[in-house]
Amino acid sequence: MKHIKIAYIGGGSKEWAKVFMNDLAQAEGITGEIALYDIDIDAAKRNQKIGNRINSHEKAISKWDYQVYEKIDGALKNADFVAISILPGTFDEMMSDVHTPEAYGIYQSVGDTAGPGGVIRSMRTVPIFEFFAKKIKEHCPKAWVLNFTNPMTICVKTLYDIFPEIKAFGCCHEVFHTQDFLCSVLEEEKGIKVHRNQIYTDVTGINHFTWITEAKYQDIDLIGLLPSFLDKYYETGFNENGSSDLYLESPFAQANRVKMDLYKQYGILAAAGDRHLVEFLNHNWYLRDKEMIDYWKFALTTVDFRIELREERIKKLELEAEGKKDIDLYTSDEEAIDLMKAILGFNQKVSNVNTINLGQVKDLPLGSIVETNALFTNDQVIPLMAKPLPKTVKNLVLRNANNIESLYEGIKNRDLNHIFESFINQPLLDGLTIVQARALFKEMIENTKEYLNQYFNIDGFLNN
Amino acid sequence: MKHIKIAYIGGGSKEWAKVFMNDLAQAEGITGEIALYDIDIDAAKRNQKIGNRINSHEKAISKWDYQVYEKIDGALKNADFVAISILPGTFDEMMSDVHTPEAYGIYQSVGDTAGPGGVIRSMRTVPIFEFFAKKIKEHCPKAWVLNFTNPMTICVKTLYDIFPEIKAFGCCHEVFHTQDFLCSVLEEEKGIKVHRNQIYTDVTGINHFTWITEAKYQDIDLIGLLPSFLDKYYETGFNENGSSDLYLESPFAQANRVKMDLYKQYGILAAAGDRHLVEFLNHNWYLRDKEMIDYWKFALTTVDFRIELREERIKKLELEAEGKKDIDLYTSDEEAIDLMKAILGFNQKVSNVNTINLGQVKDLPLGSIVETNALFTNDQVIPLMAKPLPKTVKNLVLRNANNIESLYEGIKNRDLNHIFESFINQPLLDGLTIVQARALFKEMIENTKEYLNQYFNIDGFLNN
Amino acid sequence: MKHIKIAYIGGGSKEWAKVFMNDLAQAEGITGEIALYDIDIDAAKRNQKIGNRINSHEKAISKWDYQVYEKIDGALKNADFVAISILPGTFDEMMSDVHTPEAYGIYQSVGDTAGPGGVIRSMRTVPIFEFFAKKIKEHCPKAWVLNFTNPMTICVKTLYDIFPEIKAFGCCHEVFHTQDFLCSVLEEEKGIKVHRNQIYTDVTGINHFTWITEAKYQDIDLIGLLPSFLDKYYETGFNENGSSDLYLESPFAQANRVKMDLYKQYGILAAAGDRHLVEFLNHNWYLRDKEMIDYWKFALTTVDFRIELREERIKKLELEAEGKKDIDLYTSDEEAIDLMKAILGFNQKVSNVNTINLGQVKDLPLGSIVETNALFTNDQVIPLMAKPLPKTVKNLVLRNANNIESLYEGIKNRDLNHIFESFINQPLLDGLTIVQARALFKEMIENTKEYLNQYFNIDGFLNN
Amino acid sequence: MKHIKIAYIGGGSKEWAKVFMNDLAQAEGITGEIALYDIDIDAAKRNQKIGNRINSHEKAISKWDYQVYEKIDGALKNADFVAISILPGTFDEMMSDVHTPEAYGIYQSVGDTAGPGGVIRSMRTVPIFEFFAKKIKEHCPKAWVLNFTNPMTICVKTLYDIFPEIKAFGCCHEVFHTQDFLCSVLEEEKGIKVHRNQIYTDVTGINHFTWITEAKYQDIDLIGLLPSFLDKYYETGFNENGSSDLYLESPFAQANRVKMDLYKQYGILAAAGDRHLVEFLNHNWYLRDKEMIDYWKFALTTVDFRIELREERIKKLELEAEGKKDIDLYTSDEEAIDLMKAILGFNQKVSNVNTINLGQVKDLPLGSIVETNALFTNDQVIPLMAKPLPKTVKNLVLRNANNIESLYEGIKNRDLNHIFESFINQPLLDGLTIVQARALFKEMIENTKEYLNQYFNIDGFLNN
Repeated sequence: MKHIKIAYIGGGSKEWAKVFMNDLAQAEGITGEIALYDIDIDAAKRNQKIGNRINSHEKAISKWDYQVYEKIDGALKNADFVAISILPGTFDEMMSDVHTPEAYGIYQSVGDTAGPGGVIRSMRTVPIFEFFAKKIKEHCPKAWVLNFTNPMTICVKTLYDIFPEIKAFGCCHEVFHTQDFLCSVLEEEKGIKVHRNQIYTDVTGINHFTWITEAKYQDIDLIGLLPSFLDKYYETGFNENGSSDLYLESPFAQANRVKMDLYKQYGILAAAGDRHLVEFLNHNWYLRDKEMIDYWKFALTTVDFRIELREERIKKLELEAEGKKDIDLYTSDEEAIDLMKAILGFNQKVSNVNTINLGQVKDLPLGSIVETNALFTNDQVIPLMAKPLPKTVKNLVLRNANNIESLYEGIKNRDLNHIFESFINQPLLDGLTIVQARALFKEMIENTKEYLNQYFNIDGFLNN
Repeated sequence: MKHIKIAYIGGGSKEWAKVFMNDLAQAEGITGEIALYDIDIDAAKRNQKIGNRINSHEKAISKWDYQVYEKIDGALKNADFVAISILPGTFDEMMSDVHTPEAYGIYQSVGDTAGPGGVIRSMRTVPIFEFFAKKIKEHCPKAWVLNFTNPMTICVKTLYDIFPEIKAFGCCHEVFHTQDFLCSVLEEEKGIKVHRNQIYTDVTGINHFTWITEAKYQDIDLIGLLPSFLDKYYETGFNENGSSDLYLESPFAQANRVKMDLYKQYGILAAAGDRHLVEFLNHNWYLRDKEMIDYWKFALTTVDFRIELREERIKKLELEAEGKKDIDLYTSDEEAIDLMKAILGFNQKVSNVNTINLGQVKDLPLGSIVETNALFTNDQVIPLMAKPLPKTVKNLVLRNANNIESLYEGIKNRDLNHIFESFINQPLLDGLTIVQARALFKEMIENTKEYLNQYFNIDGFLNN
Repeated sequence: MKHIKIAYIGGGSKEWAKVFMNDLAQAEGITGEIALYDIDIDAAKRNQKIGNRINSHEKAISKWDYQVYEKIDGALKNADFVAISILPGTFDEMMSDVHTPEAYGIYQSVGDTAGPGGVIRSMRTVPIFEFFAKKIKEHCPKAWVLNFTNPMTICVKTLYDIFPEIKAFGCCHEVFHTQDFLCSVLEEEKGIKVHRNQIYTDVTGINHFTWITEAKYQDIDLIGLLPSFLDKYYETGFNENGSSDLYLESPFAQANRVKMDLYKQYGILAAAGDRHLVEFLNHNWYLRDKEMIDYWKFALTTVDFRIELREERIKKLELEAEGKKDIDLYTSDEEAIDLMKAILGFNQKVSNVNTINLGQVKDLPLGSIVETNALFTNDQVIPLMAKPLPKTVKNLVLRNANNIESLYEGIKNRDLNHIFESFINQPLLDGLTIVQARALFKEMIENTKEYLNQYFNIDGFLNN
Repeated sequence: MKHIKIAYIGGGSKEWAKVFMNDLAQAEGITGEIALYDIDIDAAKRNQKIGNRINSHEKAISKWDYQVYEKIDGALKNADFVAISILPGTFDEMMSDVHTPEAYGIYQSVGDTAGPGGVIRSMRTVPIFEFFAKKIKEHCPKAWVLNFTNPMTICVKTLYDIFPEIKAFGCCHEVFHTQDFLCSVLEEEKGIKVHRNQIYTDVTGINHFTWITEAKYQDIDLIGLLPSFLDKYYETGFNENGSSDLYLESPFAQANRVKMDLYKQYGILAAAGDRHLVEFLNHNWYLRDKEMIDYWKFALTTVDFRIELREERIKKLELEAEGKKDIDLYTSDEEAIDLMKAILGFNQKVSNVNTINLGQVKDLPLGSIVETNALFTNDQVIPLMAKPLPKTVKNLVLRNANNIESLYEGIKNRDLNHIFESFINQPLLDGLTIVQARALFKEMIENTKEYLNQYFNIDGFLNN
């Protein structure tokens, strides 16, 4: 039995923490402490209660010692793993990030990674991750750090820039869904039904704008099956988990029409949800207006919806924490615990991660954060070499990767003018004049001043 | 007296050939043959007559043997230098290149380099330059090749890709004008009057989207003088050759307002005419509509105007050829003859050229064509290392450079789909949907089919 | 049951073919044809008989159809896998490769990879592999090619240079032995006994001069255990398979004293047998004279010994082929069949391979052949990013990698002068003057003229 | 008249300072202060007196204000230029550097750049240049720094590593002599007599191991003239300044036989004196023993000779300082003043310099110090792109460049073990065992302990 300490930063109001605890309870061979830290200490305490209830579940193989910390230092002290899953700012700031641009004709389906929302959210996030990196360096420099926070790329960039020896990577399940989609294609076209772990997808790009350069089940080329699949589903759309019209009810759903359309044009499969993909492209391509969005069968996820959803979740979590609702253990599709076990030497595992580009993606800048496959094993996370993208797709990805690099430089130097230059280079903002873009930028930083003021000279910029 | 042979390809209907002959006549120490070749043989013969008249001018130091060739082979045979200055296609095709996109809301001020016009013109040009490269390899592999044709970047790219040992470079005087502008700044701010040859500008980027990373007169930082200069001229504009309202009459004029505006935002000076710069940027920045264009004080150069201008020129050239009009020798600001003389070992000269990136521009792809300074001397043209661009400006340039690389790949492989992918990645077209862009692309290739059909399966694509 | 065709080129007189057939017989889930081709057709027929005897062994799970081909074309036709295991030339040539330099004071422990023997052997090998590459391109372009022939690096280089789309890699078990050595260290120092598959070694470098940059069993740093281990075994030596004096009887044995000595100096573990390592270093370091060789406890493998060994082996193989000797199936430590099964999609496997450097080793030239770990799975062999070497070790490896690159260029161009320039840059030849080195080179190519004459103008060079 | 301040660090006991003052006196258009600083203040005062005498010479166009400073700070304060020309340590240390290795069979012709002498001298030099770099950053961060001290490469490396924004370059006249040699070749073969400024040599490599990849006089290929020239002079040798036997009397002379021999083998011309070149190559190639050295017609420069020479020089300088000996102004072949005037904007000049590799030499590490041509003009020193070396020559240069990089890393980190790893990788030491090399290294650092102790834990290493 291996004893470990896992610091869990944030996650207080997320379903995701419960999945994590669910998976931990079923992980053979490991046990130890889960150190909970959240700026909302009540949320951390709620998680502690839920963790304790899971411990006492009859199917729980492994029991964990859930501790709540008031300060991050205690939580991190000597941790073996650190999981970071926070919301940078509140939904008030997110409301501005996502919806303020609408007045300028700019729609965002997610608004947390690229586009105007991604830029402003990054301005709040980078300083927080600078703080995390320093604290990790101080308290647990050898810990493995798993980030789940968005904007993924710039979070991981910050960790490596501040503490270059950090052992950090970012986990995102968008690629998993595309693997599920490919399994559906295989089943549909060949009648072969497999789990996504049985196929191999070569992944490259940046988070939420990732691409599958090759996909094989044994020697069957899954990409080669797409033309025939598209003949059937391009028009109607296809959702690997349900109806292709699910997006009408669920603002997280999509019908893969954008993905299929990009495949038709570029001959290569994008590996993230359509809602994410469209935010890296010219705004007139898929996000011009609500009619167009509807045509492509995905939804804009409003912040109102997120607020509502969170309230429901918290209500449910409170019932579970108080024992008023049963908790059942189940097999999740998340991989975090598997990855940790592989790192602990229990096995080898290959999965996609976001980490620093040491050359695994030849087409993207060295030192930028890229998403590729990596091998997890015996205290190692080693990127695999990615295959090259077609030149025109590379151009689309590189443009965004370079934007993130310059955005990071601007935030690091607290240089609002430089940040603005990254802002106007966002594909989603291509339709604005510089004057309009400046007005939007000023409005968005004014709206979120409360958070930004601690790091930037906002008033100086606004009055200029 | 050094005897050389210069093959002059094209140039039949251009004023520029006369300037060239004017400069040759005044070049001490060299003489020889000028081999004229033009698909319009009458134009070549007219140039021959003008050349002979110049020979007999009393100020002509150096006499040249003007020969007209019916086939390119004879003209190139054993040439020491080859000058290429052609119009790919006719003004009919250029009419489509420049004006067809207007129906889609896309204005182009030049339309021969970037944007939709640049793409389609490249499709006509690359195959012609493939032919030139092969003929040069056959007839004069050691000749120095000076290209003056647009789209400059892709012309030079073609020459090097087809015949990697070629000694080719592209000459463009856009940077000269920006040097003149800087001399005006120096005079205005410091009262020092110098010729552009007395200042040093570090140049980097791609043709027509070139940037000055450093400019010095002795140890005076010329870029550092701009803020004070802009206080005076940002609003009114400034034309180094005349009134800032010259653009109202002359469609080639501009008031440097775009250049000054870019400097305000990016802190670095662009080194091409405003008409060129705007075509590498989002179309809403400076080219949204005629009102905006007027606000920035530059003009759209219509093809009608070009046709008219050419007719006038030809009329004048004919009068000169027939001896009905006097030809006077004067000192031009062109450098081609100086460069040739430096190559012949008469002296050393540093000037900007377009040539293959062997590492002189670290931020742009190796093997792409870049514009930087080079040293000309003793059978050598050696690029100087360029200073790095600020990250956000690098992103703007790199996006365009990568577009050209992928465009070239598409044309080389005669792959219309790949070309289209470069087309929709043009900043000027950022406002179109993919469907609109496809319609425009099809219309433009349909319009210029007569020329494109020999190289591409246009009908196959149109009917798809 | 997956049906495949494996072309087996060479291997006629090697024990290794039998191990391969042994492993095939025990491979669940696959069957098919083994196409045997050897320039010594009798050897191929002998292998066929042995294969058939193995087929009828009671433990044989999988039966294979052993076919002998007179021409390589038939063997390769539509193969799924190609295994290449040949002797370039005969032992006569090897006699010259290994022993001619002794008269010049140059001892070689193996003489088939680096040093004078490696150079001359490469001259015979590259043209043969050029032929193989062309035949593979013609008959089975999608086959996976496993090379087992030395000099490994230049064999794989040739395959990729001639046919860039080839799916080839080279397998070598030297790293396995070093992993066994590390397992011994773990057992000795921590009392933990594991198989080499349970540890993870990060591997980088070039074949036979490979290095372990990191080795972990769970979170135990195996390299960190070496100082204490060396305290015990540096003087006496240590052989992971037997007595540290085994080298006195077996010319393939070694006591890891060189490896331990290099660790003492450089703080990093080399991952090949000592006999190989010393050939990449200055000849005075470990190979100056027989006394020094004895001091470091390894042996020179003479070609006489190899001849004797081969005769014994063939005798044994003949008895087995004729049924006069029993064949028993056993579990080998070779991985070739495992790798093939992983490629066929049965599982995932990570192992070290020699393949083209696409960036997985940042310190060695792109396009050179490097040895690192790779992931084998579903029709893919994907290199893992290797960790960087310490700068001084990098210099040792890079010198040799660059030598191989220039040697390859020389052989490819059939340029004996260029080859000679690589010859004199071999560390083992550092003690010769250029004049002495030229005499040795001429003697060695004179000795092996019979083979070299078909490819090089040997007489022209000798008479020059 | 431009007023400048030049800080002159060291140079007290060197003829070279007088040449510098001679050239200054004849430099039109500039005047100002020469700030003299030398750890031997009497030497600085002597130079001051000589400077004043030169000022009063009738041919002196430009008068300078010679000031002596007791501390380096005052000398550097607000300097426009800094010239550094020091002897790191005394001739006692140099005696050990050059002659201690002889007992181990290692001869050095210079012993100040590569080989054992170069390594130990670097250990004394780097810390001094760290100090200079910090002082320059403090007192004159915008000054242009000209280094004349050896080991050139590692001196300039230190300046850039400590203060990356420094404007530093190293000047060395070895290339000039090779240009003179090429002029002799041109005269001999074609009867054309020109000054070295009239030819163009493309230079690349590292200081004292520089190569000429192309040399042209107009379109005459000077390298192409060598075969015929070698027919005449390979055996006898050729000295561009006098008899080919001059080396018998003058320990700085040479007959270019090594250079010609390298050309015969590699087809490319090395651009440094033979005495320097041989120290970058295996010691048995040209430096095995005195007989071989004599055969190649160069001399070992003993430190006794240097001491004697210095004494003579100082005697002469004292007579000149005291007015007991006339000083005559003459035209020197040095370029330092020309380069400064070009930097001041008086003209453009192209010459070879040692500076940081930003990509101008593709084959050598970025950030290492390389020697190539550069353009000097208007406050700029801009490297020109160098042509590539043949692969086998590149390997020779790269090995040495990498050694210097690792040596620098070792010295920077005060890591004696790492320094020793660079020591044993010196080509000149290839014949020693590691044990012998360690003994030599220890002896050499013991000998020069007085200087090294302030920076390194020498006793700790010696007792280990």
